[in-house]
Amino acid sequence: MIPRIDPDRFRRDFDVLAEIGATGDGGVHRPALSDAHLAARRWFRERIEAEGLQFRTDGAGNHSALLACGPPGARTLLLGSHLDSVPRGGRFDGALGVMAAFEVLRAVRDAGPSLPVHLEAIDFTDEEGTHLGLMGSRALAGLLEAEQLQNPPCGRKVLETDLERAGLTEAGFLSARRDPATLAGYLELHIEQGARLLAGGAHIGAVTGIVGIRSFRVTFNGRADHAGTMPVADRRDASLGAAAFILAAREVVLRDFPDCVVNVGQMRFEPGAFNIVPAKATAALQFRSPEQAQFDRLEAALLAAAQSEAHRFGLAVEAQRLDEHDPMPMHPEARAAIEAGAAGLGLRCVPLASGAGHDAQSLANVTRAGMFFVPSAAGGASHSPREFTEWEDCVRGANVLLAAALRLART
Amino acid sequence: MIPRIDPDRFRRDFDVLAEIGATGDGGVHRPALSDAHLAARRWFRERIEAEGLQFRTDGAGNHSALLACGPPGARTLLLGSHLDSVPRGGRFDGALGVMAAFEVLRAVRDAGPSLPVHLEAIDFTDEEGTHLGLMGSRALAGLLEAEQLQNPPCGRKVLETDLERAGLTEAGFLSARRDPATLAGYLELHIEQGARLLAGGAHIGAVTGIVGIRSFRVTFNGRADHAGTMPVADRRDASLGAAAFILAAREVVLRDFPDCVVNVGQMRFEPGAFNIVPAKATAALQFRSPEQAQFDRLEAALLAAAQSEAHRFGLAVEAQRLDEHDPMPMHPEARAAIEAGAAGLGLRCVPLASGAGHDAQSLANVTRAGMFFVPSAAGGASHSPREFTEWEDCVRGANVLLAAALRLART
Repeated sequence: MIPRIDPDRFRRDFDVLAEIGATGDGGVHRPALSDAHLAARRWFRERIEAEGLQFRTDGAGNHSALLACGPPGARTLLLGSHLDSVPRGGRFDGALGVMAAFEVLRAVRDAGPSLPVHLEAIDFTDEEGTHLGLMGSRALAGLLEAEQLQNPPCGRKVLETDLERAGLTEAGFLSARRDPATLAGYLELHIEQGARLLAGGAHIGAVTGIVGIRSFRVTFNGRADHAGTMPVADRRDASLGAAAFILAAREVVLRDFPDCVVNVGQMRFEPGAFNIVPAKATAALQFRSPEQAQFDRLEAALLAAAQSEAHRFGLAVEAQRLDEHDPMPMHPEARAAIEAGAAGLGLRCVPLASGAGHDAQSLANVTRAGMFFVPSAAGGASHSPREFTEWEDCVRGANVLLAAALRLART
Repeated sequence: MIPRIDPDRFRRDFDVLAEIGATGDGGVHRPALSDAHLAARRWFRERIEAEGLQFRTDGAGNHSALLACGPPGARTLLLGSHLDSVPRGGRFDGALGVMAAFEVLRAVRDAGPSLPVHLEAIDFTDEEGTHLGLMGSRALAGLLEAEQLQNPPCGRKVLETDLERAGLTEAGFLSARRDPATLAGYLELHIEQGARLLAGGAHIGAVTGIVGIRSFRVTFNGRADHAGTMPVADRRDASLGAAAFILAAREVVLRDFPDCVVNVGQMRFEPGAFNIVPAKATAALQFRSPEQAQFDRLEAALLAAAQSEAHRFGLAVEAQRLDEHDPMPMHPEARAAIEAGAAGLGLRCVPLASGAGHDAQSLANVTRAGMFFVPSAAGGASHSPREFTEWEDCVRGANVLLAAALRLART
């Protein structure tokens, strides 16, 4: 008999969690290390301990439930995702994977099977990049470098303040690496954040690989002038370079890189007054590609567009690289375990590339990492309170996670 | 004999004032009601009292030095400008006019002439619009409306906090109107903030009128999406509408409104994360025209451009009117006094329209207001620490202010 998770117990926890940092319109606001995020973590710890599972944390603030179901000295199979959200994000993104992993541990404990490995349900710190994307999973995989912590996208001060408030330290992050020899693999259930599964009538998307992500701060520098007395034609207005770049970046992707995406998610003009021509316009640029060589070509094309638009308006431009994640294939054994698990449950499973970054890509550097999606409804809306997944699909996902974990544990 | 100001006394005060909120590169950072601005005001009050002049303040926080040089019950001729600055602005803008007015009072006191009017050197609150442009002078002219204080461009909370810190109240502003029957006129010396005087070899620009200014908050509304999973072509990205609008607004002015200017001085994307497609982009729009009918046509053209760019990218757009100043001619008697004053000093004086808003336009509603410029060097750089005027030109300006005040007082 195939073991199953308890859908009611799973749902009770999921719904309580969704109230922590709730935005009132179905979403949650739990940026990493915010008060709401720390409250969600305290609640998770209490739930772990209330269930009699062992609680574990590390220097990166990753929180885990442990089930010692393997023989002494056995390796550990990690199952997990993250409890942090983007600002005003959805309640399924990340939270579903952590709650499903937690439920899988309880289901295995209740079924009492003895496995060749221990199981660990893990919540990774700052997947979404409030400070540094995949910060917790990169720390665990030994990928985090001191230099990255010195120059996080939103600034060092904000990071320092938040670490202190959360009782974490930089040294802790840099020493949180787990010995890969102790790991048996990693599996992550996540919502699709797109509309391909529903469009294709599939229940499960077995992730083939995760796109690479690069982030830059692009700054256009012109000259501050009085907005009443300096004729428009004589200005060196930084806003013009930034505006033209936003439109050019979109054209570059639509025309030459149809598999890729680009986003300018933040913009700041300085000095920042109604009556001063902007001397500086700073854009937060992020772009993604499923393939490394194409990734480099996309970067070159975007930075050339920034240069060309700056030149057109008499501006200087600087592009500062902030963060980089290579495109990362999933492990064939993990993917096979997911596909077999779905098949065993009679579910239709299709292969998919992930356009979003996930903790699984950090783990793929050091262990057999696999990932799969359940369908997103609402047109694939994501990083938004409109994000939605049918509860039936959440239960299917948790059962696939259980089945895949049991298979990978025995592979 | 034509009386003259004392250039050394004038300079000593000017230089001390320039140290208050100094940016270290020649500029000052004294946004209205900031700590540096309040420090500058305290210093001005001390200087007034140290000189034995009478200090006066009103509900709008305007600060004045009074010289009762007229007969009992005489009207008052105001001379002044403002001590606040834009963020990281220049040390001449506003400060020169207040210090020159203060020096003129001392020169008249020292010369001992008896005039038909009293003289008052006034520093107006928030000329630059940190909260609301020309707030102090509008209050004095009885032009400020309660509704404007309810909805200032940078938000009500910021205004409330700053008023409280400065010991001012909304009720004070709304009751600061001076009876126009008590006023004999207003004269303001200011730097040009442009390069026309130097280019034309003139010493003094007699302002014919001040351009009108309108400010809007223009908000483009789209949809927040995950910046990795939502294909670029399927987004409703608010940043695209805002970017296209910035470029279109410039084209509209260059092509159809060569006498006008437009500026987008602030921009904010929300939610504001590297990995979220902007759902909302909010632009601070300001535009100016010397003539009322053209002003209305420019407004219609800009709002149509916003609508059209929003439509092109599947966005909604709202334009909220924040603040409005009509184009305002200067009074012929005040202008004649300035021109005669310059001529009497052997200075070359040319007529000029002012592209910048000034307190003189508030006063023009209620009294004989006049204004004149001295040359800006550094290519006319303004609202910038690079702003510069030769000291010789400042002294010329102060002497013209003295001569024009004596003339207007007797007209």
